[in-house]
Amino acid sequence: MLAYSELAESIDRYDFWPQDWLPVEPELLPDYSVGGTPLIAPERLRAYLGYPNLYLKDDSMNPSGSLKDRASFLVAGMARKIGKNHIIVASTGNSASSMAGLAAATGMKCTVLVPEQTPVVKLVQCMMYGATVIPIRGDYDKAYELSMQLSQKYGWVNRNAGYNPFTMEGKKTVAIEMYQQLDDQAPDNIFIPTGDGAILSGIYKGFYDLFQLDLIEAMPRLIAVQPEKSNALIRALTTNSLEPLDHAETIADSLCVRTARNGVMAVKDIHKSCGFGVPVTDEAILEAQEILAKQTGLFVEPAAACSLAGFLAVKSDIDPDSKTVLLLTGTGLKNPAVVTDRMKLPEAVDADIKAIAKRIELNSD
Amino acid sequence: MLAYSELAESIDRYDFWPQDWLPVEPELLPDYSVGGTPLIAPERLRAYLGYPNLYLKDDSMNPSGSLKDRASFLVAGMARKIGKNHIIVASTGNSASSMAGLAAATGMKCTVLVPEQTPVVKLVQCMMYGATVIPIRGDYDKAYELSMQLSQKYGWVNRNAGYNPFTMEGKKTVAIEMYQQLDDQAPDNIFIPTGDGAILSGIYKGFYDLFQLDLIEAMPRLIAVQPEKSNALIRALTTNSLEPLDHAETIADSLCVRTARNGVMAVKDIHKSCGFGVPVTDEAILEAQEILAKQTGLFVEPAAACSLAGFLAVKSDIDPDSKTVLLLTGTGLKNPAVVTDRMKLPEAVDADIKAIAKRIELNSD
Repeated sequence: MLAYSELAESIDRYDFWPQDWLPVEPELLPDYSVGGTPLIAPERLRAYLGYPNLYLKDDSMNPSGSLKDRASFLVAGMARKIGKNHIIVASTGNSASSMAGLAAATGMKCTVLVPEQTPVVKLVQCMMYGATVIPIRGDYDKAYELSMQLSQKYGWVNRNAGYNPFTMEGKKTVAIEMYQQLDDQAPDNIFIPTGDGAILSGIYKGFYDLFQLDLIEAMPRLIAVQPEKSNALIRALTTNSLEPLDHAETIADSLCVRTARNGVMAVKDIHKSCGFGVPVTDEAILEAQEILAKQTGLFVEPAAACSLAGFLAVKSDIDPDSKTVLLLTGTGLKNPAVVTDRMKLPEAVDADIKAIAKRIELNSD
Repeated sequence: MLAYSELAESIDRYDFWPQDWLPVEPELLPDYSVGGTPLIAPERLRAYLGYPNLYLKDDSMNPSGSLKDRASFLVAGMARKIGKNHIIVASTGNSASSMAGLAAATGMKCTVLVPEQTPVVKLVQCMMYGATVIPIRGDYDKAYELSMQLSQKYGWVNRNAGYNPFTMEGKKTVAIEMYQQLDDQAPDNIFIPTGDGAILSGIYKGFYDLFQLDLIEAMPRLIAVQPEKSNALIRALTTNSLEPLDHAETIADSLCVRTARNGVMAVKDIHKSCGFGVPVTDEAILEAQEILAKQTGLFVEPAAACSLAGFLAVKSDIDPDSKTVLLLTGTGLKNPAVVTDRMKLPEAVDADIKAIAKRIELNSD
């Protein structure tokens, strides 16, 4: 990685790529199309909400279907750099399938520890990629502790967020892309689905790099949205205590953590960006997921829908003229059960024009 | 759309976008990040196969998870142009969920007719987007006929591939992107998963545009890969008869059709490009799906894996120095059942370091 001063000299809007800002030689990174995800100006959602400057950063458009690819990408490159060939990760599912995909692309071994309730599709993905999948009778926090012991025991690279600093460094590219996609400006507000706080700090780091290079004049406000029953980080924002919760529970499986592993840093980053935390209920998350699908044609997972749920909760405090980005962190295709459990799939109709016309006319009543 | 002569004048490698070649005003197209998908140089797969010039065009990286978004995108724009607000489509699943997503992004109504065996995730996606989903007791071919009657009856736009020419015109952008991504060259061979032949003709059209503009000197060879028990198009290549099959059956649900609706054109396009057809078994498809996942970190649906299965079947006839592209048409996340049905998910282990170490050491034996 270049020093800031060298980097500043070489910067031209048209010829720098966020991946050049990663601390690893490009030839060590695989050709796996991480990042470069769209920043969408959603015409119908903007009109529906009355916010003409709202944007969606759709990070479900990464190869394994979540923002986690940005971290796994750099971790895989770093593992190559130091000559390691086995990576372990504890995960609620997305980091696991992401690391497994990157391990396949780079020819590494990968072991993933996940809670046994992890959505099936995320496990299937890991196994297709050839990872060793170990579901444990315990939650993410337990998997986290065990994975730390195992990486010590076997000498493997540990990719856990909040432990491995390259996860955060990898995630920063999403911030640099937002800057580029907004014609070399930072947004005013970013709503961020938050579990342990590592994505939030990754975004902070990206804008901090831009700030250090005098490319932006102020940091955007980072707003952490957390499920109300998995709110370790938001609690820490007010109490300044990072005690783990006794129990965490939310439909947003990717955010279900008792301990905010990256809490110290994330709390500081939120304060420094003049941001704040917003708790949201599971009902609000599911409603936001549906609004997004119906108003934009994007089907994201519940965790990702938190950013809209949080925005809706504090909308009256957000200036409609401000540039606000909702970060969408993962695809809905990886946990369809959340939706199917609530939805009645229509029964089949006889392949007959009259029967179908009757069904259509019933639907349009 | 500009005439070829006008277009030729305006072309500069750095400032043309495939979407400018669509016959609709850009302001009618929604901000829905269709296309611009990666052309991947898969280092491990290249080494594994001994083909240093093999590429993957990963069109699973479209917003609804399949190449079909390219067609739905233009159809939605055209519907706006002619003042229509309801679109119907018969589909094996991907066109349905794609059209439903684009209808959500543009605020149109959408009705989809699908065979009742359509993978659940594809239906869930359609319903989340707000489409009216009508599963019929019959196959795709029956759904196709009925949808034609319904669009007549209600005056709706019909998006069926092989009927609506804008589907093919929309799909051509994948060809133009390949040209740009190969530094302004056409590849030598493209392996294309094939059902009714509409994707193949869309690709032909894209390269034909490039050829007409003197940007390429020769058409790439288009190779149609079809499941052996859903091979209407391949049969037509040899017999010159487009009779529907009595029965079609394949694990590649997206390619399961009795009638090659775009057969006349696709057969001509294959011949004109000096291409050919390759039938593949379901076993070969599943094997290719697994090779892709394990060697590249891309988890695609069985239909998409056909391109690799076809390549493997005729590999000895393909010059290793030729530029060959395997087209990946859709994501594996939309039909995980194909995989889970064959795979044994590992049992959970007690959250105990010894128990987990034992499992790890068992796995590595």
